Amino acid sequence: MKAHVYVTPKRTVLDPQGQTIARALNGMGHPEIVGVRQGKFFEIEIAPGSEREAVLANLDKIAAEVLSNPVIEEYRIEVLD
Amino acid sequence: MKAHVYVTPKRTVLDPQGQTIARALNGMGHPEIVGVRQGKFFEIEIAPGSEREAVLANLDKIAAEVLSNPVIEEYRIEVLD
Repeated sequence: MKAHVYVTPKRTVLDPQGQTIARALNGMGHPEIVGVRQGKFFEIEIAPGSEREAVLANLDKIAAEVLSNPVIEEYRIEVLD
Repeated sequence: MKAHVYVTPKRTVLDPQGQTIARALNGMGHPEIVGVRQGKFFEIEIAPGSEREAVLANLDKIAAEVLSNPVIEEYRIEVLD
């Protein structure tokens, strides 16, 4: 079983890294780029035979406590088969 | 218009950051986590009225030249409306 966890800075939090990339792209001849936000994601491989509900509950805990900082970031979990 | 660019280390490249996370999770009582690979992603906001084909071609160039290191990383582009 596989899962993806996406972690992005919250809308209300400045993302200086993304702003820098957007400005750099504008300067490199891509004026159509209005904004960039950078996040991270995790491809997680889960042992086969795990129960989907339990996996989802565990992942939610892992994403909140280990993979993201809930003060400034939000996360999204996607379980694939 | 919005686009997402996902950048991951190639399968053949070691991902020590991901391995460390996987080991940490195993030690924290999640033995079902077999592996973790960490990547980054970019939410890109594109000026409205841009032509989809041109945007895709530009994004491909941007992803290859700016957002990723093609020697060790691969990327995937997703254009949303």
